Amino acid sequence: MKNAPVNPDAPDWIESIQWTADGLVPAIAQDAASGEILMMAWMNRESLRLTAEEGRAVYWSRSRGKLWRKGETSGHQQIIKDIRLDCDEDVILLKVEQKGGIACHTGRHSCFYRSLQDQQWVSVEPVIKDPEAIYGSN
Amino acid sequence: MKNAPVNPDAPDWIESIQWTADGLVPAIAQDAASGEILMMAWMNRESLRLTAEEGRAVYWSRSRGKLWRKGETSGHQQIIKDIRLDCDEDVILLKVEQKGGIACHTGRHSCFYRSLQDQQWVSVEPVIKDPEAIYGSN
Repeated sequence: MKNAPVNPDAPDWIESIQWTADGLVPAIAQDAASGEILMMAWMNRESLRLTAEEGRAVYWSRSRGKLWRKGETSGHQQIIKDIRLDCDEDVILLKVEQKGGIACHTGRHSCFYRSLQDQQWVSVEPVIKDPEAIYGSN
Repeated sequence: MKNAPVNPDAPDWIESIQWTADGLVPAIAQDAASGEILMMAWMNRESLRLTAEEGRAVYWSRSRGKLWRKGETSGHQQIIKDIRLDCDEDVILLKVEQKGGIACHTGRHSCFYRSLQDQQWVSVEPVIKDPEAIYGSN
């Protein structure tokens, strides 16, 4: 049978997404209260399903090749307030409550902390918490 | 010579980005005033350089295989207020002034107009202007 869905058990709302050939979709996380953009990561079908079921962001780590429950080490979970889909059905937007106020592994609120100024990337956002204090030193 | 840059003339701030194997990077556009996320599209080195030089968003259209000066048909240009880079250096964030208040080709402010409700994607944002009035009917 041609064009069989990759996962016939996935619900329609998941299958209606235009997944990449690798079965992924980019997901943007936005602070639901302030509107700040926190990060962008990737999801596969399972991580998106779990995100909706558990009410907290679950990504797919491309580098580690496994599910990544955001905050599993740091405690900085992202509680889901809304899940949006764009017009091309190939990008997800999560509106979240960011636990601890820190989304970035560098200890900053947002991962987008570098601004282009005079043809250089300049850090313009403060480190809220030392990463060693978040993740430990080993 | 191994590991030669793809474009040795590109400035350092462009080469420091982790481009995909296809030479692309995802770019999120955010309304600089309201904080709303307008869209996500892709850029290649040239489109990012032109975005910085011209002060308005220039994307790379993967479907058409060419530069896409946002607003060239609709007039809905995105004037650049800030260009940000994330911690992994593989996602760009543009803070923009959205001309006409419409980023989406459906005539809506934002492309992320569908919300997941009871396992269905539901349109929750109004159409501001009929797409036929924006692009013409032919």
